[in-house]
Amino acid sequence: LSPYEVIRKKRSGEELTRAEIDFMVRGLLDGLVQDYQMAAFLMAIYFVGMTDRETDDLTRIMLASGEVLDMSGVSGPKVDKHSTGGVGDKLSLIVAPVAAAAGVRVPMVSGRALGHTGGTLDKLESIPGLRTDFEPDAFVELVRTVGMAIVGQSPQIAPADRRMYALRDVTATVECIPLIVSSILSKKLAAGLDALVLDVKVGEGAFMEDIGHARELAEKLVSTAGHLGLPATAVLTDMGSPLGLTVGNALEVREAIDVLKGGGPEDVRRTSLMLASRMILMAGLSADSESAEREAVRLLDDGSALDMFRRFVQAQGGDPTVVDDPRCLPRAPAQLGLKSQKTGFVRDIDTLAVGLVASGLGAGRTRVGERVDSSVGIEIRAPLGSAVSVGDELAVVHACRETDAEAAVERLGEAFVVGEGSISVPDRILEILDGA
Amino acid sequence: LSPYEVIRKKRSGEELTRAEIDFMVRGLLDGLVQDYQMAAFLMAIYFVGMTDRETDDLTRIMLASGEVLDMSGVSGPKVDKHSTGGVGDKLSLIVAPVAAAAGVRVPMVSGRALGHTGGTLDKLESIPGLRTDFEPDAFVELVRTVGMAIVGQSPQIAPADRRMYALRDVTATVECIPLIVSSILSKKLAAGLDALVLDVKVGEGAFMEDIGHARELAEKLVSTAGHLGLPATAVLTDMGSPLGLTVGNALEVREAIDVLKGGGPEDVRRTSLMLASRMILMAGLSADSESAEREAVRLLDDGSALDMFRRFVQAQGGDPTVVDDPRCLPRAPAQLGLKSQKTGFVRDIDTLAVGLVASGLGAGRTRVGERVDSSVGIEIRAPLGSAVSVGDELAVVHACRETDAEAAVERLGEAFVVGEGSISVPDRILEILDGA
Repeated sequence: LSPYEVIRKKRSGEELTRAEIDFMVRGLLDGLVQDYQMAAFLMAIYFVGMTDRETDDLTRIMLASGEVLDMSGVSGPKVDKHSTGGVGDKLSLIVAPVAAAAGVRVPMVSGRALGHTGGTLDKLESIPGLRTDFEPDAFVELVRTVGMAIVGQSPQIAPADRRMYALRDVTATVECIPLIVSSILSKKLAAGLDALVLDVKVGEGAFMEDIGHARELAEKLVSTAGHLGLPATAVLTDMGSPLGLTVGNALEVREAIDVLKGGGPEDVRRTSLMLASRMILMAGLSADSESAEREAVRLLDDGSALDMFRRFVQAQGGDPTVVDDPRCLPRAPAQLGLKSQKTGFVRDIDTLAVGLVASGLGAGRTRVGERVDSSVGIEIRAPLGSAVSVGDELAVVHACRETDAEAAVERLGEAFVVGEGSISVPDRILEILDGA
Repeated sequence: LSPYEVIRKKRSGEELTRAEIDFMVRGLLDGLVQDYQMAAFLMAIYFVGMTDRETDDLTRIMLASGEVLDMSGVSGPKVDKHSTGGVGDKLSLIVAPVAAAAGVRVPMVSGRALGHTGGTLDKLESIPGLRTDFEPDAFVELVRTVGMAIVGQSPQIAPADRRMYALRDVTATVECIPLIVSSILSKKLAAGLDALVLDVKVGEGAFMEDIGHARELAEKLVSTAGHLGLPATAVLTDMGSPLGLTVGNALEVREAIDVLKGGGPEDVRRTSLMLASRMILMAGLSADSESAEREAVRLLDDGSALDMFRRFVQAQGGDPTVVDDPRCLPRAPAQLGLKSQKTGFVRDIDTLAVGLVASGLGAGRTRVGERVDSSVGIEIRAPLGSAVSVGDELAVVHACRETDAEAAVERLGEAFVVGEGSISVPDRILEILDGA
């Protein structure tokens, strides 16, 4: 075997054996396969695709490149939720405590902001003191004692994915279903889960811009997980406009706490409850989807989820007073409103642009390793479908400096389309795909 | 501009601007574009292709990455012949002296053996003393005084092609028409030619295995050369069996000298005369193709081409006595015949396998920089179409050691198919494509 032969075989449209895929993935870590060969290989996969068998094998091999968490000491069903990434997606902060309050054990491994999408770890770290860098043993212990934990990816987990993802990120091969599937699942399988709920976002602010591709991704995620022994459910959710009314780290934490207290935007509440109920159902803690949903609503409305969130914050070193008084969260010094120049209805919001403006303010990063600013971001005052008059605030920008705020308001103005005639706002929950 | 954006644009099937192509090619040399990004970019080009305009621009940019030879001091028409590479292809050693004898100035930049194909430089270096590593000025002076020279690629010529080719070679992106075209022509344009004759090989021992792809390559070579101001003619020639009766460096030089003396295999003689006549025609030294062909035949048959070859050998430091006595060429110590096990006709010879066996004996190399053995190779005794009886020699292997010879005979046996019924051997010259 040589890297050349394997690249050539894939390039020619042939199915690779498990040994060939293994040779490439291990070779990358061992130095037998060079970065440029892996980059060409990944681009060939982008064009040729992978069969189900190849995707299963790639996932297994990436999983086997690192350690697997030992969750044997944690009793109870272990279920995680994973989102493919969106703008304003603070659902993990609500979903995890609701599910954990129901008795699900939630060992959530999360990511950081990159490009126009935010990262759960960055959001959580806007809570003073809260840490997400726990060693595997400490992570398992948090799940065992608290019921949930949200931590960053350990370098011991699927190191092959880390190397391959870094290459994909700079060679335009991120948007490739078999590569997305193996990347997500190799890491999730390493967490020793019993089941997985996937939130596959659809729309201009997501990987998958149309429902067809999103469904294809969701199906491949669910089927590959199934082949590897991990029952999974995928929920397709709409990312045609920012989720909820906030984009930015501390702003989103505040909104999540609002939802945990029974308030907050309806789309965030409903989607969180749906995802949490699916975790409860897959954990075997409810007999059917209706009772699981009722259970999720009950745990949110009776304060159990908020209590769980408070315990989680405290266990990970955070200041729990923010839960009761979100004014303790960092606040940006400059705030500036975007005013509507027309009377009519908010007919479109460019989700990608909103994500990029928030990232540009400092809420996200364009390169791995950059620092983010917890306090900055965007509050949406007129979500999709709102009726507005000239001069009404469409959004408020939270920035470090007045000049940043002005520039952001300028760019944000182009993201809001106000016109005549009301529109119907699509439901966030589009489809549910259950695994076999 | 960023490498990511340009890769993504090409990957998405869009046409790149000249500035974008320039950014990638120069960036590779400047360190702004990493090897892995270029590798992904090249694989994207493999799948998406390039428009004529993109191919023209890529060729121009690769040409501009290095120096252009100053041929202004050389009077007379300067025409080169380039082959896409085959097995047993010693035509340059005959074509160049025939054309030079007619008054064409032949500044031939040639290559080395790699994989299953041989290299003209390696063949020539089997002549004791002969050098091919001349500086640009010395190369020009040889062409001026002798009328022809055959040298290696100078590192000052198209350095971008050198870097890109090295990546293509290890990432399975060699077989891509716009990349082949820009690689060949950027180097040929740098030699200050007035015209170019291209020998595009077709068959299992060539880049292009079928006539359709070969024709596509030939058309793109001729049209791109034309767009860049270089008149070109392409001749499609059959590479379905090894060319002539020898494969290996010294063996091929001996065969070329036989042809220059009026003997040698008919396919080598005819193809050489056709290519040389096209050079004479493009140089404007004959009025039409018929008179150019008559001129080529005359110069071969009256010994003028042999004289030119002798002068060329001497001018490049070689021992001219090999021309009169080819026994001065290196000879391998071990010789072993491959005997036919059947009576019948040679119905097929696996050209690629013959090339690989010769290379494995030491006539070629699997990696750039490896040493080759001048003496080893294969003599074919029963070319395609021959009638053979049980025990007749099909070929003779020339090797360094008896054990090498035995192993090579074993492998070579599988390359020869002897069966019932005679076959018609295709003509080597398949099609001629003249530039506009």
